[in-house]
Amino acid sequence: RADGSRLWSTILETAAFGGTPAGGINRLTLSAEDGRVRDWFRDACLAAGLEVSVDALGTQYALRPGRDMSRKPIAFGSHLDTQPTGGKFDGVLGVLAGLEVMRSLNDAGIETEAPLMVVNWTNEEGSRFAPAMMASAAYAGDFTTDEILAKRDAAGTTVAEALDVIGYRGVEAVGTREIGAFVELHIEQGPILEAEGKTIGVVEGGQGIMWFDGVITGFESHAGTTPMPRRRDALLALSEFALAAERIALAHAPSAVATIGEAAIVAPSRNVVPGRVAFTLDVRDPRSAILDAMEAELLEAAGAIASRRRLEIQLNRIWRKEPVPFDPAIVAAVDAAAESLGHPRRRIISGAGHDACNLAARVPTAMIFVPCKDGVSHNEAESATQGDCAAGADVLLQTVLRLANA
Amino acid sequence: RADGSRLWSTILETAAFGGTPAGGINRLTLSAEDGRVRDWFRDACLAAGLEVSVDALGTQYALRPGRDMSRKPIAFGSHLDTQPTGGKFDGVLGVLAGLEVMRSLNDAGIETEAPLMVVNWTNEEGSRFAPAMMASAAYAGDFTTDEILAKRDAAGTTVAEALDVIGYRGVEAVGTREIGAFVELHIEQGPILEAEGKTIGVVEGGQGIMWFDGVITGFESHAGTTPMPRRRDALLALSEFALAAERIALAHAPSAVATIGEAAIVAPSRNVVPGRVAFTLDVRDPRSAILDAMEAELLEAAGAIASRRRLEIQLNRIWRKEPVPFDPAIVAAVDAAAESLGHPRRRIISGAGHDACNLAARVPTAMIFVPCKDGVSHNEAESATQGDCAAGADVLLQTVLRLANA
Ligand SMILES: NC(=O)NCCC(=O)O
Ligand SMILES: NC(=O)NCCC(=O)O
Repeated sequence: RADGSRLWSTILETAAFGGTPAGGINRLTLSAEDGRVRDWFRDACLAAGLEVSVDALGTQYALRPGRDMSRKPIAFGSHLDTQPTGGKFDGVLGVLAGLEVMRSLNDAGIETEAPLMVVNWTNEEGSRFAPAMMASAAYAGDFTTDEILAKRDAAGTTVAEALDVIGYRGVEAVGTREIGAFVELHIEQGPILEAEGKTIGVVEGGQGIMWFDGVITGFESHAGTTPMPRRRDALLALSEFALAAERIALAHAPSAVATIGEAAIVAPSRNVVPGRVAFTLDVRDPRSAILDAMEAELLEAAGAIASRRRLEIQLNRIWRKEPVPFDPAIVAAVDAAAESLGHPRRRIISGAGHDACNLAARVPTAMIFVPCKDGVSHNEAESATQGDCAAGADVLLQTVLRLANA
Repeated sequence: RADGSRLWSTILETAAFGGTPAGGINRLTLSAEDGRVRDWFRDACLAAGLEVSVDALGTQYALRPGRDMSRKPIAFGSHLDTQPTGGKFDGVLGVLAGLEVMRSLNDAGIETEAPLMVVNWTNEEGSRFAPAMMASAAYAGDFTTDEILAKRDAAGTTVAEALDVIGYRGVEAVGTREIGAFVELHIEQGPILEAEGKTIGVVEGGQGIMWFDGVITGFESHAGTTPMPRRRDALLALSEFALAAERIALAHAPSAVATIGEAAIVAPSRNVVPGRVAFTLDVRDPRSAILDAMEAELLEAAGAIASRRRLEIQLNRIWRKEPVPFDPAIVAAVDAAAESLGHPRRRIISGAGHDACNLAARVPTAMIFVPCKDGVSHNEAESATQGDCAAGADVLLQTVLRLANA
């Protein structure tokens, strides 16, 4: 078993890096705060006797040798970056529970056959740089390292520059390090486990995701003198499009979701009819065909609004992540571990994207979920109990032992 | 007659202060660019032999003595600040035509009975600091000087601090300088004169204006895991409110207008359901009772949206400017001047707010409009012809002579 109270202490201790007055964390990827939590994690891994390495996209790997070094390591972990209004558990739990697995094995003097490895993937959140989960995507071969290094945040800073600023541009080539299996522990970020009184979600896969960048170009004009019918108001067009996206998602209930998370008027002024609005759109469903249908419906809605309001709506898909099934053998190992520990559990599909969803294309992969309060995540009020976090770490430990000694 | 080509040269010359690549001007009030155009204006006035003074809110007054110094000066002018996407004429025309009136009278060796005064009012636009036309409002007694000095821009800078930065916090107490009559030349900023082929608008008054600050508070949550019906999305609430405001304005056609000019998600992120949105609302109509009705309808719409979407919508009115009738005698003087010059003209109501609307409460006031292309204003493409600007300056000159020598 893992030491649940030591795990809890590390969660509280690292929450100080980017901690907010409301009890959340604002630790955007590759920020100064992210640099500090990375340093903390590196030092903790070194103190636990692990061999620490950083790849060219800043992902941290910490290896614990096994008896059979010819075997690929069994890897686990998640991410230490957060949303601007992030909580203390999203990502953090998976990395720190991974560290706790190493510490617990050390304490118990347990050696494994295969080596073990805990990983902190760069930019899982996708809030500062798009897309989300970019380092694990590069590991899996979806992007080249150079493509990722060239991505820019809203201020124009590239991933390469941001890595250099915090000193986390490693020398190890991305994707060269082999992994035997990957297991990610995470809070559910949804309401199902809590509602059903289950401690463990045995995750069978992740839903599909599309991200779009949009720009609406109307015409700036005087708020006092421009008659309503003459206006080409970019904000009113966005308003209609946002409500259309909500209707389209509801029409594909219960699973589909659509979200405009960012929207900004260019050169806003109280007494100017908005001429230009930039926005983002996030669309998800577990079924690939529904993603296709929603994209067509969204484009049609945008076209209708644009022609009725005499303005231009551009909608560019910048990312599509197909729905991902996890590896049945690894899913079974998670299930067996949870059963052996006696935790109430259920099979579940992840609504959020995770590094595990990228790893799955290359490495046998599965995930473990634990409940979070009211299903709330990407919110400073995100909350999980010490007991559930400890249960998740136990299941992770037992799963890893099964895989490493099989 | 005024020298139309000299006037045109000063319009082009001063357009360089804050000039944009698209041919407009971005010269927010009390910015460095505003400081530079103020210096230029002061120097030009001094070179024309005028006596220049600055009041405690930065308003510039340039006096030309009359034969009878016991008479209150006949004043004219407008403002040199612009919108972030402003054009070359809004405000600028009235100030520079005022300077041109002084220069033309000097060239012709004409003395007037009453003194003359050209004025550059601080912060007419209201884009950086709310409300609009704040210095003329303080002159008229609607606000105390201290109230205005304490207003803050989005960055938290006060008017007092901004005045100090550019060295325009004068010693003259606001409102102590008496004015005998005020005449403001301005582009129409609407489509009527152009459509009817009139060169001069004889402005009979200005419509009423209400400004609101709004905040919508929902709940941040995960874009991938939060089912659509569980969301408390502040941006979707804003979208419904923006469309409701449009419907409410259209229901009071043809004159009513409503505009959300600023709207910003707090801590936006692509994969976070927006939890908080701040916005502004501008509502206008020439009828006071319609303003009352629209305010009630807007509050009702906000309440209905808030309760249906389980979130909070705050809507605070920060400013109300009643519809203003101008002084019949000054309106008649403008009309007579336009007739004497043979310009096609019509009576008109101003859709925009103007410093003249504030002055009217204290001083006999009227305005002169000239056409602008397609009625476009608060846009870098704002355009007026040299001929129409010259015609406006001529009518200003003749009106001023009538008033000063009466
Ligand atoms: N787990 C998580 O919140 N990932 C961020 C990427 C996403 O939006 O799903
Ligand atoms: N003339 C003008 O554009 N004034 C700005 C204040 C307003 O919004 O009407």
